[in-house]
Amino acid sequence: MRNIRLLLQYEGTRYQGWQRQESAENTIQGKLEKLLGQMCGEVIELQGSGRTDAGVHAKGQVANFRTSCSMSVEEMQKYMNTYLPQDIAVIEVAEASERFHSRLNAVGKCYRYQVWNSEVSNVFLRRYALEYPQALDVEAMRKASAYLLGEHDFKAFTSTKKGKKSTVRRIDEIRIEQEGALITFTFQGNGFLYHMVRILVGTLLEVGRGLRDPDTMLEVIASKNRENAGELVAAKGLTLVRVNYS
Amino acid sequence: MRNIRLLLQYEGTRYQGWQRQESAENTIQGKLEKLLGQMCGEVIELQGSGRTDAGVHAKGQVANFRTSCSMSVEEMQKYMNTYLPQDIAVIEVAEASERFHSRLNAVGKCYRYQVWNSEVSNVFLRRYALEYPQALDVEAMRKASAYLLGEHDFKAFTSTKKGKKSTVRRIDEIRIEQEGALITFTFQGNGFLYHMVRILVGTLLEVGRGLRDPDTMLEVIASKNRENAGELVAAKGLTLVRVNYS
Repeated sequence: MRNIRLLLQYEGTRYQGWQRQESAENTIQGKLEKLLGQMCGEVIELQGSGRTDAGVHAKGQVANFRTSCSMSVEEMQKYMNTYLPQDIAVIEVAEASERFHSRLNAVGKCYRYQVWNSEVSNVFLRRYALEYPQALDVEAMRKASAYLLGEHDFKAFTSTKKGKKSTVRRIDEIRIEQEGALITFTFQGNGFLYHMVRILVGTLLEVGRGLRDPDTMLEVIASKNRENAGELVAAKGLTLVRVNYS
Repeated sequence: MRNIRLLLQYEGTRYQGWQRQESAENTIQGKLEKLLGQMCGEVIELQGSGRTDAGVHAKGQVANFRTSCSMSVEEMQKYMNTYLPQDIAVIEVAEASERFHSRLNAVGKCYRYQVWNSEVSNVFLRRYALEYPQALDVEAMRKASAYLLGEHDFKAFTSTKKGKKSTVRRIDEIRIEQEGALITFTFQGNGFLYHMVRILVGTLLEVGRGLRDPDTMLEVIASKNRENAGELVAAKGLTLVRVNYS
Protein backbone atom coordinates (compact mmCIF):
# COMPACT_ATOMS: atom_id res chain seq x y z
CA MET A 1 0.00 0.00 0.00
CA ARG A 2 1.20 3.50 -0.85
CA ASN A 3 0.81 6.38 1.59
CA ILE A 4 0.00 9.62 -0.25
CA ARG A 5 0.31 13.07 1.26
CA LEU A 6 -1.77 16.03 0.03
CA LEU A 7 -1.20 19.74 0.53
CA LEU A 8 -4.61 21.41 0.26
CA GLN A 9 -6.06 24.88 -0.07
CA TYR A 10 -9.72 25.72 0.37
CA GLU A 11 -12.11 28.55 0.92
CA GLY A 12 -14.37 27.37 3.73
CA THR A 13 -17.29 29.70 3.01
CA ARG A 14 -19.54 27.09 1.37
CA TYR A 15 -18.59 24.15 3.58
CA GLN A 16 -19.76 22.64 6.83
CA GLY A 17 -16.15 22.24 7.89
CA TRP A 18 -13.45 19.65 7.23
CA GLN A 19 -14.89 16.62 8.93
CA ARG A 20 -17.08 14.13 7.11
CA GLN A 21 -20.46 13.86 8.81
CA GLU A 22 -23.46 11.60 8.31
CA SER A 23 -25.77 14.59 8.50
CA ALA A 24 -23.79 17.06 6.40
CA GLU A 25 -23.57 16.87 2.62
CA ASN A 26 -20.96 19.51 2.16
CA THR A 27 -17.72 18.83 4.00
CA ILE A 28 -14.18 19.12 2.64
CA GLN A 29 -13.17 15.66 3.80
CA GLY A 30 -16.37 14.20 2.36
CA LYS A 31 -15.86 15.86 -1.03
CA LEU A 32 -12.23 14.74 -1.22
CA GLU A 33 -12.86 11.16 -0.09
CA LYS A 34 -15.61 10.74 -2.66
CA LEU A 35 -13.37 12.00 -5.45
CA LEU A 36 -10.38 9.93 -4.26
CA GLY A 37 -12.65 6.88 -4.20
CA GLN A 38 -13.61 7.47 -7.85
CA MET A 39 -9.98 8.08 -8.77
CA CYS A 40 -8.61 4.99 -7.06
CA GLY A 41 -11.55 2.64 -7.51
CA GLU A 42 -11.53 1.75 -3.83
CA VAL A 43 -12.85 3.18 -0.57
CA ILE A 44 -10.47 5.89 0.61
CA GLU A 45 -10.15 7.23 4.11
CA LEU A 46 -8.48 10.63 4.15
CA GLN A 47 -6.76 11.70 7.36
CA GLY A 48 -6.44 15.47 7.89
CA SER A 49 -3.90 17.17 10.17
CA GLY A 50 -6.90 18.41 12.10
CA ARG A 51 -10.46 19.58 11.59
CA THR A 52 -11.28 23.05 10.45
CA ASP A 53 -14.70 24.36 11.44
CA ALA A 54 -17.49 25.44 9.11
CA GLY A 55 -16.44 28.63 7.33
CA VAL A 56 -12.72 28.36 8.21
CA HIS A 57 -10.27 28.54 5.29
CA ALA A 58 -6.98 26.74 4.63
CA LYS A 59 -3.92 27.76 2.68
CA GLY A 60 -1.91 24.75 3.76
CA GLN A 61 -3.96 21.89 5.18
CA VAL A 62 -2.14 18.53 5.08
CA ALA A 63 -3.85 15.17 4.70
CA ASN A 64 -2.85 11.61 3.82
CA PHE A 65 -4.47 8.42 2.57
CA ARG A 66 -3.45 4.85 1.79
CA THR A 67 -4.14 3.33 -1.59
CA SER A 68 -3.11 0.51 -3.87
CA CYS A 69 -3.82 2.67 -6.93
CA SER A 70 -0.97 2.85 -9.46
CA MET A 71 -1.38 6.44 -10.74
CA SER A 72 1.63 8.73 -10.52
CA VAL A 73 1.40 11.62 -8.05
CA GLU A 74 1.32 14.04 -11.00
CA GLU A 75 -1.64 12.19 -12.51
CA MET A 76 -3.41 12.24 -9.15
CA GLN A 77 -2.94 15.99 -8.76
CA LYS A 78 -4.20 16.65 -12.27
CA TYR A 79 -7.19 14.36 -11.83
CA MET A 80 -8.18 15.94 -8.54
CA ASN A 81 -7.81 19.54 -9.69
CA THR A 82 -9.90 18.74 -12.77
CA TYR A 83 -12.85 17.46 -10.78
CA LEU A 84 -12.69 19.45 -7.54
CA PRO A 85 -14.90 22.54 -7.20
CA GLN A 86 -13.16 25.92 -7.67
CA ASP A 87 -12.92 26.56 -3.94
CA ILE A 88 -10.74 23.50 -3.20
CA ALA A 89 -7.30 23.00 -4.75
CA VAL A 90 -4.60 20.35 -4.37
CA ILE A 91 -1.31 22.24 -4.19
CA GLU A 92 0.95 19.22 -3.89
CA VAL A 93 0.76 15.43 -4.00
CA ALA A 94 3.69 13.38 -2.73
CA GLU A 95 4.58 9.84 -1.71
CA ALA A 96 4.95 9.70 2.06
CA SER A 97 6.80 7.17 4.15
CA GLU A 98 4.74 4.22 5.32
CA ARG A 99 4.47 5.60 8.84
CA PHE A 100 3.52 9.19 8.00
CA HIS A 101 0.29 10.32 9.69
CA SER A 102 -0.85 13.88 9.01
CA ARG A 103 -2.39 14.39 12.44
CA LEU A 104 -0.17 12.36 14.75
CA ASN A 105 3.10 13.55 13.18
CA ALA A 106 2.22 17.25 13.15
CA VAL A 107 4.53 19.15 15.50
CA GLY A 108 3.18 22.62 14.91
CA LYS A 109 0.54 24.74 13.22
CA CYS A 110 0.25 28.27 12.02
CA TYR A 111 -3.10 30.06 11.94
CA ARG A 112 -3.94 33.56 10.75
CA TYR A 113 -6.94 35.64 11.78
CA GLN A 114 -7.87 38.78 9.84
CA VAL A 115 -9.84 41.71 11.26
CA TRP A 116 -11.11 44.57 9.09
CA ASN A 117 -11.08 47.45 11.58
CA SER A 118 -13.19 50.09 9.88
CA GLU A 119 -16.73 51.41 9.90
CA VAL A 120 -16.82 50.81 6.15
CA SER A 121 -16.84 47.30 4.72
CA ASN A 122 -14.14 45.96 2.42
CA VAL A 123 -15.93 44.06 -0.33
CA PHE A 124 -12.80 42.06 -1.18
CA LEU A 125 -12.32 40.83 2.39
CA ARG A 126 -15.95 40.14 3.22
CA ARG A 127 -15.38 36.37 3.13
CA TYR A 128 -11.91 36.44 4.76
CA ALA A 129 -12.00 38.96 7.60
CA LEU A 130 -14.11 39.82 10.63
CA GLU A 131 -15.57 43.31 10.36
CA TYR A 132 -14.85 45.06 13.61
CA PRO A 133 -15.50 48.80 13.55
CA GLN A 134 -14.62 49.68 17.16
CA ALA A 135 -11.36 51.55 17.81
CA LEU A 136 -8.56 49.15 18.82
CA ASP A 137 -5.37 49.73 20.78
CA VAL A 138 -2.95 47.45 18.95
CA GLU A 139 -0.15 47.98 21.47
CA ALA A 140 -2.42 46.84 24.31
CA MET A 141 -3.30 43.70 22.30
CA ARG A 142 0.40 43.01 21.72
CA LYS A 143 1.10 43.41 25.41
CA ALA A 144 -1.72 40.99 26.28
CA SER A 145 -0.59 38.47 23.66
CA ALA A 146 2.85 38.20 25.28
CA TYR A 147 1.25 36.57 28.35
CA LEU A 148 -0.15 33.81 26.15
CA LEU A 149 3.24 32.66 24.91
CA GLY A 150 4.74 29.44 26.19
CA GLU A 151 3.09 26.34 27.59
CA HIS A 152 -0.19 26.81 29.42
CA ASP A 153 -3.38 24.96 30.17
CA PHE A 154 -5.69 26.77 27.73
CA LYS A 155 -8.89 25.24 29.13
CA ALA A 156 -10.38 28.76 29.44
CA PHE A 157 -9.90 29.23 25.70
CA THR A 158 -11.78 26.26 24.28
CA SER A 159 -15.42 25.38 23.71
CA THR A 160 -14.79 21.72 24.52
CA LYS A 161 -16.69 20.63 27.58
CA LYS A 162 -15.24 18.29 30.19
CA GLY A 163 -12.97 15.69 28.74
CA LYS A 164 -10.03 13.58 29.65
CA LYS A 165 -7.75 14.96 26.97
CA SER A 166 -5.05 17.42 27.92
CA THR A 167 -5.81 21.09 27.28
CA VAL A 168 -2.15 22.04 27.65
CA ARG A 169 -0.66 23.63 24.52
CA ARG A 170 2.42 25.70 23.71
CA ILE A 171 2.19 28.96 21.73
CA ASP A 172 5.55 29.91 20.21
CA GLU A 173 4.64 33.18 18.55
CA ILE A 174 1.79 35.66 18.25
CA ARG A 175 2.25 38.45 15.72
CA ILE A 176 -0.23 41.31 15.46
CA GLU A 177 0.30 43.38 12.32
CA GLN A 178 -1.59 46.46 11.18
CA GLU A 179 -1.72 47.61 7.57
CA GLY A 180 -4.27 50.36 7.13
CA ALA A 181 -7.57 49.02 8.46
CA LEU A 182 -6.45 45.39 8.21
CA ILE A 183 -5.21 43.80 11.44
CA THR A 184 -3.70 40.34 11.08
CA PHE A 185 -3.13 38.01 14.03
CA THR A 186 -0.70 35.16 13.34
CA PHE A 187 -0.42 32.27 15.80
CA GLN A 188 2.31 29.64 15.76
CA GLY A 189 2.14 26.80 18.26
CA ASN A 190 2.41 23.07 18.79
CA GLY A 191 -1.35 22.68 18.45
CA PHE A 192 -4.61 24.48 19.12
CA LEU A 193 -7.74 23.32 20.94
CA TYR A 194 -11.27 23.43 19.53
CA HIS A 195 -12.16 27.13 18.90
CA MET A 196 -8.94 28.21 20.67
CA VAL A 197 -7.64 30.67 18.06
CA ARG A 198 -11.05 32.33 17.65
CA ILE A 199 -11.50 32.70 21.42
CA LEU A 200 -7.94 34.04 21.81
CA VAL A 201 -8.66 36.65 19.13
CA GLY A 202 -12.02 37.50 20.72
CA THR A 203 -10.27 38.04 24.04
CA LEU A 204 -7.48 40.15 22.51
CA LEU A 205 -10.07 42.33 20.72
CA GLU A 206 -11.72 43.03 24.09
CA VAL A 207 -8.29 44.12 25.36
CA GLY A 208 -7.95 46.30 22.26
CA ARG A 209 -11.24 48.02 23.02
CA GLY A 210 -10.18 48.73 26.60
CA LEU A 211 -12.74 46.30 28.08
CA ARG A 212 -9.95 44.17 29.60
CA ASP A 213 -6.58 45.04 31.07
CA PRO A 214 -3.68 43.36 29.17
CA ASP A 215 -2.22 42.30 32.54
CA THR A 216 -5.23 40.14 33.38
CA MET A 217 -4.43 37.47 30.78
CA LEU A 218 -2.56 35.18 33.20
CA GLU A 219 -5.59 35.26 35.52
CA VAL A 220 -7.87 34.21 32.67
CA ILE A 221 -5.52 31.32 31.83
CA ALA A 222 -5.23 30.31 35.49
CA SER A 223 -9.01 30.32 35.98
CA LYS A 224 -9.38 27.51 33.38
CA ASN A 225 -12.92 28.83 33.01
CA ARG A 226 -14.33 29.55 29.55
CA GLU A 227 -16.57 32.28 30.97
CA ASN A 228 -13.54 34.41 31.82
CA ALA A 229 -12.25 34.50 28.25
CA GLY A 230 -13.65 36.65 25.44
CA GLU A 231 -16.19 35.91 22.77
CA LEU A 232 -15.82 33.37 19.99
CA VAL A 233 -15.24 35.44 16.84
CA ALA A 234 -16.52 34.56 13.36
CA ALA A 235 -15.06 31.59 11.49
CA LYS A 236 -14.56 33.48 8.22
CA GLY A 237 -11.59 35.46 9.59
CA LEU A 238 -9.59 32.29 10.27
CA THR A 239 -7.16 30.50 7.94
CA LEU A 240 -5.01 27.45 8.64
CA VAL A 241 -1.78 28.65 7.04
CA ARG A 242 0.65 25.80 7.60
CA VAL A 243 1.18 22.47 9.35
CA ASN A 244 4.72 21.69 10.49
CA TYR A 245 6.35 18.26 10.59
CA SER A 246 9.75 17.46 12.03
CA MET B 1 -28.90 71.65 -5.88
CA ARG B 2 -26.13 69.84 -4.04
CA ASN B 3 -23.40 67.95 -5.90
CA ILE B 4 -22.43 64.77 -4.03
CA ARG B 5 -19.28 62.77 -4.67
CA LEU B 6 -19.02 59.06 -3.91
CA LEU B 7 -15.95 56.89 -3.50
CA LEU B 8 -17.01 53.33 -4.35
CA GLN B 9 -15.66 49.82 -4.04
CA TYR B 10 -17.15 46.80 -5.77
CA GLU B 11 -16.45 43.25 -6.74
CA GLY B 12 -17.51 43.04 -10.39
CA THR B 13 -18.00 39.26 -10.52
CA ARG B 14 -21.81 39.29 -10.38
CA TYR B 15 -22.35 42.42 -12.49
CA GLN B 16 -22.77 43.25 -16.15
CA GLY B 17 -20.42 46.17 -15.70
CA TRP B 18 -20.80 49.75 -14.47
CA GLN B 19 -23.08 51.20 -17.10
CA ARG B 20 -26.84 51.19 -16.75
CA GLN B 21 -28.42 49.37 -19.70
CA GLU B 22 -31.99 48.86 -20.80
CA SER B 23 -31.28 45.19 -21.42
CA ALA B 24 -29.21 44.42 -18.33
CA GLU B 25 -30.73 44.06 -14.88
CA ASN B 26 -27.53 43.87 -12.96
CA THR B 27 -25.25 46.87 -13.42
CA ILE B 28 -23.43 48.83 -10.72
CA GLN B 29 -24.73 52.19 -11.94
CA GLY B 30 -28.26 50.81 -12.20
CA LYS B 31 -28.17 49.39 -8.64
CA LEU B 32 -26.80 52.63 -7.22
CA GLU B 33 -29.18 54.94 -9.08
CA LYS B 34 -32.17 52.92 -7.95
CA LEU B 35 -31.06 53.08 -4.32
CA LEU B 36 -30.19 56.79 -4.53
CA GLY B 37 -33.63 57.44 -6.02
CA GLN B 38 -35.27 55.72 -3.03
CA MET B 39 -33.00 57.60 -0.63
CA CYS B 40 -33.60 61.04 -2.15
CA GLY B 41 -37.20 60.63 -3.32
CA GLU B 42 -36.31 61.90 -6.77
CA VAL B 43 -34.82 60.53 -9.98
CA ILE B 44 -31.03 60.43 -9.64
CA GLU B 45 -28.52 60.29 -12.44
CA LEU B 46 -25.15 59.02 -11.24
CA GLN B 47 -22.08 59.98 -13.26
CA GLY B 48 -19.12 57.62 -12.96
CA SER B 49 -15.49 58.52 -13.71
CA GLY B 50 -15.68 55.91 -16.44
CA ARG B 51 -17.27 52.59 -17.22
CA THR B 52 -15.86 49.37 -15.93
CA ASP B 53 -16.66 46.25 -17.95
CA ALA B 54 -18.55 43.19 -16.81
CA GLY B 55 -16.46 41.34 -14.24
CA VAL B 56 -14.02 44.20 -13.58
CA HIS B 57 -13.57 45.25 -9.94
CA ALA B 58 -13.06 48.66 -8.34
CA LYS B 59 -11.27 49.69 -5.17
CA GLY B 60 -11.66 53.40 -5.84
CA GLN B 61 -14.30 54.27 -8.44
CA VAL B 62 -15.52 57.89 -8.19
CA ALA B 63 -19.02 59.05 -9.11
CA ASN B 64 -21.19 62.12 -8.50
CA PHE B 65 -24.85 63.06 -8.57
CA ARG B 66 -26.98 66.16 -8.06
CA THR B 67 -29.79 66.19 -5.53
CA SER B 68 -32.01 68.51 -3.53
CA CYS B 69 -32.18 65.97 -0.72
CA SER B 70 -31.35 67.33 2.74
CA MET B 71 -29.67 64.31 4.33
CA SER B 72 -26.16 64.75 5.71
CA VAL B 73 -23.34 62.96 3.89
CA GLU B 74 -22.92 60.69 6.93
CA GLU B 75 -26.60 59.72 6.79
CA MET B 76 -26.31 59.06 3.06
CA GLN B 77 -23.31 56.76 3.52
CA LYS B 78 -25.02 54.85 6.30
CA TYR B 79 -28.25 54.50 4.30
CA MET B 80 -26.43 53.27 1.21
CA ASN B 81 -24.22 50.78 2.99
CA THR B 82 -27.28 49.41 4.80
CA TYR B 83 -29.15 48.64 1.60
CA LEU B 84 -26.40 47.88 -0.90
CA PRO B 85 -25.49 44.24 -1.58
CA GLN B 86 -22.32 42.94 0.10
CA ASP B 87 -20.24 43.29 -3.05
CA ILE B 88 -20.70 47.07 -3.35
CA ALA B 89 -19.57 49.51 -0.64
CA VAL B 90 -19.58 53.28 -0.36
CA ILE B 91 -16.20 54.21 1.13
CA GLU B 92 -16.75 57.96 1.27
CA VAL B 93 -19.51 60.50 0.64
CA ALA B 94 -18.60 64.19 0.33
CA GLU B 95 -20.06 67.51 -0.83
CA ALA B 96 -18.42 68.49 -4.10
CA SER B 97 -18.17 71.90 -5.67
CA GLU B 98 -20.98 72.82 -8.04
CA ARG B 99 -18.79 72.25 -11.09
CA PHE B 100 -17.26 68.89 -10.09
CA HIS B 101 -17.78 66.19 -12.75
CA SER B 102 -16.33 62.75 -11.98
CA ARG B 103 -15.53 61.93 -15.61
CA LEU B 104 -14.63 65.28 -17.15
CA ASN B 105 -12.46 66.40 -14.22
CA ALA B 106 -10.49 63.15 -13.90
CA VAL B 107 -6.83 63.77 -14.77
CA GLY B 108 -5.53 60.27 -14.19
CA LYS B 109 -6.38 56.70 -13.37
CA CYS B 110 -4.63 53.77 -11.81
CA TYR B 111 -5.50 50.20 -12.78
CA ARG B 112 -4.10 46.94 -11.45
CA TYR B 113 -4.10 43.60 -13.24
CA GLN B 114 -3.31 40.38 -11.34
CA VAL B 115 -1.95 37.19 -12.90
CA TRP B 116 -1.62 33.92 -10.98
CA ASN B 117 1.33 32.34 -12.73
CA SER B 118 1.18 28.72 -11.60
CA GLU B 119 -0.08 25.37 -12.79
CA VAL B 120 -2.03 25.10 -9.56
CA SER B 121 -5.02 27.34 -8.87
CA ASN B 122 -5.18 29.74 -5.96
CA VAL B 123 -8.66 29.40 -4.52
CA PHE B 124 -8.46 32.81 -2.83
CA LEU B 125 -7.60 34.63 -6.06
CA ARG B 126 -9.95 32.78 -8.39
CA ARG B 127 -12.22 35.83 -8.70
CA TYR B 128 -9.40 38.42 -8.78
CA ALA B 129 -6.62 37.07 -10.96
CA LEU B 130 -6.10 35.51 -14.36
CA GLU B 131 -4.73 31.98 -14.14
CA TYR B 132 -1.78 31.79 -16.49
CA PRO B 133 0.35 28.67 -16.05
CA GLN B 134 2.94 29.28 -18.80
CA ALA B 135 6.47 30.28 -17.73
CA LEU B 136 6.94 34.07 -17.93
CA ASP B 137 10.07 36.15 -18.32
CA VAL B 138 9.27 39.12 -16.07
CA GLU B 139 12.36 41.08 -17.15
CA ALA B 140 11.32 40.83 -20.81
CA MET B 141 7.84 42.13 -19.89
CA ARG B 142 9.40 45.04 -17.98
CA LYS B 143 11.58 45.86 -20.96
CA ALA B 144 8.56 45.81 -23.31
CA SER B 145 6.48 47.93 -20.92
CA ALA B 146 9.05 50.75 -21.03
CA TYR B 147 8.19 51.33 -24.72
CA LEU B 148 4.58 51.97 -23.78
CA LEU B 149 5.38 54.89 -21.46
CA GLY B 150 4.61 58.41 -22.59
CA GLU B 151 2.04 59.75 -25.00
CA HIS B 152 1.08 57.49 -27.90
CA ASP B 153 -1.84 56.75 -30.15
CA PHE B 154 -2.99 53.49 -28.57
CA LYS B 155 -5.45 52.62 -31.38
CA ALA B 156 -3.83 49.16 -31.67
CA PHE B 157 -4.70 48.51 -28.03
CA THR B 158 -8.45 49.10 -28.00
CA SER B 159 -11.51 47.15 -29.10
CA THR B 160 -13.29 50.34 -30.19
CA LYS B 161 -13.96 50.36 -33.92
CA LYS B 162 -13.62 53.45 -36.09
CA GLY B 163 -14.60 56.60 -34.31
CA LYS B 164 -13.86 60.28 -34.28
CA LYS B 165 -12.63 60.35 -30.71
CA SER B 166 -8.92 60.60 -30.06
CA THR B 167 -7.13 57.38 -29.19
CA VAL B 168 -4.09 59.25 -27.88
CA ARG B 169 -3.33 58.60 -24.21
CA ARG B 170 -0.38 59.08 -21.88
CA ILE B 171 0.92 56.27 -19.67
CA ASP B 172 3.02 57.62 -16.78
CA GLU B 173 4.02 54.38 -15.10
CA ILE B 174 3.84 50.62 -15.54
CA ARG B 175 5.01 48.52 -12.61
CA ILE B 176 5.34 44.76 -12.89
CA GLU B 177 5.81 43.11 -9.51
CA GLN B 178 6.30 39.44 -8.72
CA GLU B 179 5.56 37.92 -5.33
CA GLY B 180 5.72 34.16 -5.50
CA ALA B 181 3.32 33.07 -8.25
CA LEU B 182 1.42 36.38 -8.19
CA ILE B 183 2.39 38.89 -10.86
CA THR B 184 0.81 42.33 -10.51
CA PHE B 185 0.75 44.87 -13.34
CA THR B 186 0.03 48.46 -12.22
CA PHE B 187 -0.79 51.12 -14.82
CA GLN B 188 -0.93 54.84 -14.12
CA GLY B 189 -1.96 57.18 -16.92
CA ASN B 190 -4.15 60.09 -17.91
CA GLY B 191 -6.84 57.76 -19.18
CA PHE B 192 -7.35 54.37 -20.79
CA LEU B 193 -9.33 53.37 -23.88
CA TYR B 194 -11.98 50.66 -24.01
CA HIS B 195 -10.25 47.32 -23.19
CA MET B 196 -6.83 49.04 -23.30
CA VAL B 197 -5.40 47.73 -20.02
CA ARG B 198 -6.52 44.17 -20.74
CA ILE B 199 -5.03 44.22 -24.26
CA LEU B 200 -1.78 45.74 -22.94
CA VAL B 201 -1.52 42.94 -20.38
CA GLY B 202 -2.36 40.33 -23.03
CA THR B 203 0.41 41.70 -25.22
CA LEU B 204 2.94 41.84 -22.36
CA LEU B 205 2.12 38.22 -21.43
CA GLU B 206 2.95 37.18 -25.00
CA VAL B 207 6.30 38.95 -24.57
CA GLY B 208 6.76 37.11 -21.26
CA ARG B 209 6.22 33.77 -23.01
CA GLY B 210 8.77 34.60 -25.66
CA LEU B 211 6.15 34.84 -28.44
CA ARG B 212 7.02 38.50 -29.05
CA ASP B 213 10.25 40.44 -28.85
CA PRO B 214 10.14 43.27 -26.28
CA ASP B 215 11.65 45.58 -28.90
CA THR B 216 8.65 45.23 -31.24
CA MET B 217 6.31 47.25 -29.04
CA LEU B 218 6.84 50.54 -30.85
CA GLU B 219 5.98 48.82 -34.14
CA VAL B 220 2.73 47.54 -32.67
CA ILE B 221 1.86 51.06 -31.45
CA ALA B 222 2.81 52.60 -34.80
CA SER B 223 0.69 50.11 -36.75
CA LYS B 224 -2.49 51.40 -35.04
CA ASN B 225 -3.89 47.99 -35.90
CA ARG B 226 -5.66 45.93 -33.21
CA GLU B 227 -4.60 42.71 -34.94
CA ASN B 228 -0.97 43.39 -34.12
CA ALA B 229 -1.54 43.60 -30.38
CA GLY B 230 -2.04 40.63 -28.07
CA GLU B 231 -5.18 38.96 -26.79
CA LEU B 232 -7.79 40.57 -24.57
CA VAL B 233 -7.28 38.94 -21.17
CA ALA B 234 -10.06 38.08 -18.69
CA ALA B 235 -11.95 40.88 -16.92
CA LYS B 236 -11.66 39.30 -13.47
CA GLY B 237 -7.95 40.17 -13.15
CA LEU B 238 -8.61 43.90 -13.51
CA THR B 239 -9.28 46.43 -10.75
CA LEU B 240 -9.77 50.19 -11.02
CA VAL B 241 -7.62 51.26 -8.09
CA ARG B 242 -7.84 55.05 -8.07
CA VAL B 243 -9.08 58.08 -10.02
CA ASN B 244 -6.99 61.24 -9.76
CA TYR B 245 -8.31 64.81 -9.78
CA SER B 246 -6.21 67.94 -9.81
